[in-house]
Amino acid sequence: MSVGTANEKAFASTLVKNSYGKSLVRLTKINRSGKIPTWKEITVEIELAGPEFGGCYYEGDNSKIVATDSMKNTVYVIGARNDLNSIEEYGLALAKHFLDDYKHVDEANIRISEDIWSQIPIEGGVHPTSFVKAQSDLRCAHIWMTRKETKITSGIDNLIVAKITNSEFAGHIQDAYTTLKDTHDRIFGTKVEAKWVWKNHKADFNAGYEAARKIMLETFAHHHSLSAQQTLFAMGDAVIAKVSDIEEISLTLPNLHRIPFNLEPLGMDNKNEIFVNTSEPHGTIRGTMARKK
Amino acid sequence: MSVGTANEKAFASTLVKNSYGKSLVRLTKINRSGKIPTWKEITVEIELAGPEFGGCYYEGDNSKIVATDSMKNTVYVIGARNDLNSIEEYGLALAKHFLDDYKHVDEANIRISEDIWSQIPIEGGVHPTSFVKAQSDLRCAHIWMTRKETKITSGIDNLIVAKITNSEFAGHIQDAYTTLKDTHDRIFGTKVEAKWVWKNHKADFNAGYEAARKIMLETFAHHHSLSAQQTLFAMGDAVIAKVSDIEEISLTLPNLHRIPFNLEPLGMDNKNEIFVNTSEPHGTIRGTMARKK
Amino acid sequence: MSVGTANEKAFASTLVKNSYGKSLVRLTKINRSGKIPTWKEITVEIELAGPEFGGCYYEGDNSKIVATDSMKNTVYVIGARNDLNSIEEYGLALAKHFLDDYKHVDEANIRISEDIWSQIPIEGGVHPTSFVKAQSDLRCAHIWMTRKETKITSGIDNLIVAKITNSEFAGHIQDAYTTLKDTHDRIFGTKVEAKWVWKNHKADFNAGYEAARKIMLETFAHHHSLSAQQTLFAMGDAVIAKVSDIEEISLTLPNLHRIPFNLEPLGMDNKNEIFVNTSEPHGTIRGTMARKK
Amino acid sequence: MSVGTANEKAFASTLVKNSYGKSLVRLTKINRSGKIPTWKEITVEIELAGPEFGGCYYEGDNSKIVATDSMKNTVYVIGARNDLNSIEEYGLALAKHFLDDYKHVDEANIRISEDIWSQIPIEGGVHPTSFVKAQSDLRCAHIWMTRKETKITSGIDNLIVAKITNSEFAGHIQDAYTTLKDTHDRIFGTKVEAKWVWKNHKADFNAGYEAARKIMLETFAHHHSLSAQQTLFAMGDAVIAKVSDIEEISLTLPNLHRIPFNLEPLGMDNKNEIFVNTSEPHGTIRGTMARKK
Repeated sequence: MSVGTANEKAFASTLVKNSYGKSLVRLTKINRSGKIPTWKEITVEIELAGPEFGGCYYEGDNSKIVATDSMKNTVYVIGARNDLNSIEEYGLALAKHFLDDYKHVDEANIRISEDIWSQIPIEGGVHPTSFVKAQSDLRCAHIWMTRKETKITSGIDNLIVAKITNSEFAGHIQDAYTTLKDTHDRIFGTKVEAKWVWKNHKADFNAGYEAARKIMLETFAHHHSLSAQQTLFAMGDAVIAKVSDIEEISLTLPNLHRIPFNLEPLGMDNKNEIFVNTSEPHGTIRGTMARKK
Repeated sequence: MSVGTANEKAFASTLVKNSYGKSLVRLTKINRSGKIPTWKEITVEIELAGPEFGGCYYEGDNSKIVATDSMKNTVYVIGARNDLNSIEEYGLALAKHFLDDYKHVDEANIRISEDIWSQIPIEGGVHPTSFVKAQSDLRCAHIWMTRKETKITSGIDNLIVAKITNSEFAGHIQDAYTTLKDTHDRIFGTKVEAKWVWKNHKADFNAGYEAARKIMLETFAHHHSLSAQQTLFAMGDAVIAKVSDIEEISLTLPNLHRIPFNLEPLGMDNKNEIFVNTSEPHGTIRGTMARKK
Repeated sequence: MSVGTANEKAFASTLVKNSYGKSLVRLTKINRSGKIPTWKEITVEIELAGPEFGGCYYEGDNSKIVATDSMKNTVYVIGARNDLNSIEEYGLALAKHFLDDYKHVDEANIRISEDIWSQIPIEGGVHPTSFVKAQSDLRCAHIWMTRKETKITSGIDNLIVAKITNSEFAGHIQDAYTTLKDTHDRIFGTKVEAKWVWKNHKADFNAGYEAARKIMLETFAHHHSLSAQQTLFAMGDAVIAKVSDIEEISLTLPNLHRIPFNLEPLGMDNKNEIFVNTSEPHGTIRGTMARKK
Repeated sequence: MSVGTANEKAFASTLVKNSYGKSLVRLTKINRSGKIPTWKEITVEIELAGPEFGGCYYEGDNSKIVATDSMKNTVYVIGARNDLNSIEEYGLALAKHFLDDYKHVDEANIRISEDIWSQIPIEGGVHPTSFVKAQSDLRCAHIWMTRKETKITSGIDNLIVAKITNSEFAGHIQDAYTTLKDTHDRIFGTKVEAKWVWKNHKADFNAGYEAARKIMLETFAHHHSLSAQQTLFAMGDAVIAKVSDIEEISLTLPNLHRIPFNLEPLGMDNKNEIFVNTSEPHGTIRGTMARKK
């Protein structure tokens, strides 16, 4: 480590953790190798760590610093070299670059999110090179790489779904803090955030992503929900059951409440038809499901 | 007008315009009349105007004030009575209510936006009562009603599209302020905001909306664009040509630039493949197309 | 106008309105002319209109088009030449440039917002060249210029204030849609949006802005409010009364409700102490006050 | 644990982690005990964990579930009982409530953020009961409590600052991926996120917060910065040196670049005066400083 003890002595504190990098690097790549051009749009974050960066914190010694501007350049250079088949493969290439080229980097974190575009429907099919953002959700990946280990976590963010029947919530604790009554027919709306850990880095990332998304949507659709927790578990468990490349999955489901509007003071009866769609407060349900050993 | 001249004299200014109302009233309605429940989720804004509200501004005399809390209640009460076949029909009912019930209201503005949900795809079809937010765009309507006139404007907001070929921009003014060069193959990405005026209030609002959205998407897909302006005009003109209920359409197209990344200083050549996706600054193109008389 | 009748004939519609420009152009200018450097940070939007741009919409003829990229360049070039004493003076210079240099431009709209920074408080005063964002509000200006007329509108956006006493709301209409009861002590919280029109373009824009902001804050603080409308009028009227350069002012005040939480079902009494701070729905109160003639 | 082995057997996965709670619960409390009313506005998140919640995930058994609606009620009930002297003390009371009342709760997380209001300046002082949001930053706290341990982390979020001189960046690695040149006078703008860990739960949380905020601002103002990392360390180290109640502090400083605009192609010289203020991409610098033992 480049930091002299002499200098550290001057301080009241010790730097026990450090990292730095570049966020919100946006890359659009057009692939012109086939008959028709195809494309991807991604947003990349790079975060590097290692004890030798300490000199920069203690003394402003930048001699070991890969400028965050250079990291930005690297996103485009590796983006030009890599075929971007999946964000996971591209992220692995980026992480490897930083560990290979800079011996004092101990750890690289690459976080990528991908906008999902669909070809525009036209008479008799879809247009090959014109696109519409037809999903609210993003595809995400996080590559964590050290000189000994690599962990690849992928996921989906902002997948907005709702079911207007087959959702109950009853039998919860009734005490001095409770005013909520049992309900056997409520709307269950949520915004799925999923993160799954791959078995290894030889997985078929694209097929796994497609499968996980489809399975979560279908399970959410079919599940007779006794609680948001139960539906969360069912969704995660179904992914584990059907996608052998995925070892563990974490889900976060906000419970975006639709609250029955009280029409009684206005002389009407609300037959479970009129609701107030709210954003705050909301429930937040979290769970991590791991493949049984 | 309820405001005494005596009081007005005390002030340096005259109230030349006023309005008030309730914003962000969110209504979810489940319709249970058919075999399977259906639903809609909308956000409503009510804005009322009339000279008799002046007493509230000058003197704090609330005797003519429909509380904004009562406006909120009204959204749910009329929402319970109306079948919500379209946001336009519901908005007309709301506007009419305020003019009918309060003789001192001169003008009612009802603005509604609707979240668009799709049934979740499952094995062999779609699930009838489970939904995914599968469009980035919102459907919107604005009802402006006075005792003499009604104007219905509908639209689409946040329709995010991009075409990765068939877009040029060349031949613009070259002067001391210009650095942009001609390009004959650029990405054209935008977020369509459309507002159209209906011929009358007997239009088939749902069919017109579906047609306008489809025509704009198809035109954007097929158009060989010499400029964002030309594509904007082509989109609006196609709607006017094919939807006889629509008299006028205004479009706003931000030009969400993808800028070629300069790989030269990094020793590489950018063969029109690597771009920076930017959000600021962006072009903004506007136009209003009216049916020829 | 460059558009041949032959081509227009091909279309179902006529372009009845058009404009285009560049949005979100962000300029930071350091002024190094004094002993210590000073700075400003502004965001600029340029929008130009004129019938000769029609050729671009109808035919993709860009020969009259000032590229929006050139407009962006112009923000920086004029920013380098102008001392940026006020956003109004800078905006006037920008508008004039577009009308002077391009004879086919009929109308220029320049919209500017300025971030407000304060020097960081240090032992014994403030630091001359280090700043903290110590206001939630933005200063804004809109220059509308044609060859015949100029209108300068300035304003404040996002000025977040609240008063926790001296606010009542009572005596409103009670009918079948009303559930709200009279209150004589409520919290009144709002986010002021103000826009005022200057008498002419020789006004002291900086002094007028400082005065208008101070007067609105003081009036809001002192006013015994019988309604949001009355407070809005008092604020605008006070500006008109005290700032002779301002001819007219428009205010929009959302009523950001704090709703008493019902503690009764939980066995407690709410002595006007416990509230739910809400963002949706909210009241929206608007008014325009003009100087008496 | 209430979950029968029989049922767990049916699943492909095991629930290895779970938690749930209520987010975005907004509380406004007016304290009317003194001569003039005072107030606080906070947003609360509650998150509970414990193995006995597993039955709800596996089987939809809600018998151990504290409804998130009851958690919301609790925020207001404890809010009415507690004097809210600091968000830390209130958060401790909330966390203790959940562990005391529900024996199957193993862990409670309470996250609170507080809006900071200032009394409105008026002639001769400030108004006692009228307020303006005069800081961009929020005060935050996180209480993590188990039956054995309590950890209190407090912080500041969104503290937006900039220094327009005394900031350099030079001597970084120059290689094939580098285009950035050395600079000895740049703008350094950032948005401070700070989180500090208290020595124990008897600290003077309000005084500690005030001190930490003041010290960070002053250090940022005075520091001659050789890198964002060095300034980050200086800010954290100063807090550790001067606030004995704080044991550790973590800072995240985005580097919100102001990039010199290239005026050369436009025939002008940029004398370090004209910059583009950007939001993406940006650097992100992180560090944790712990008191030396």
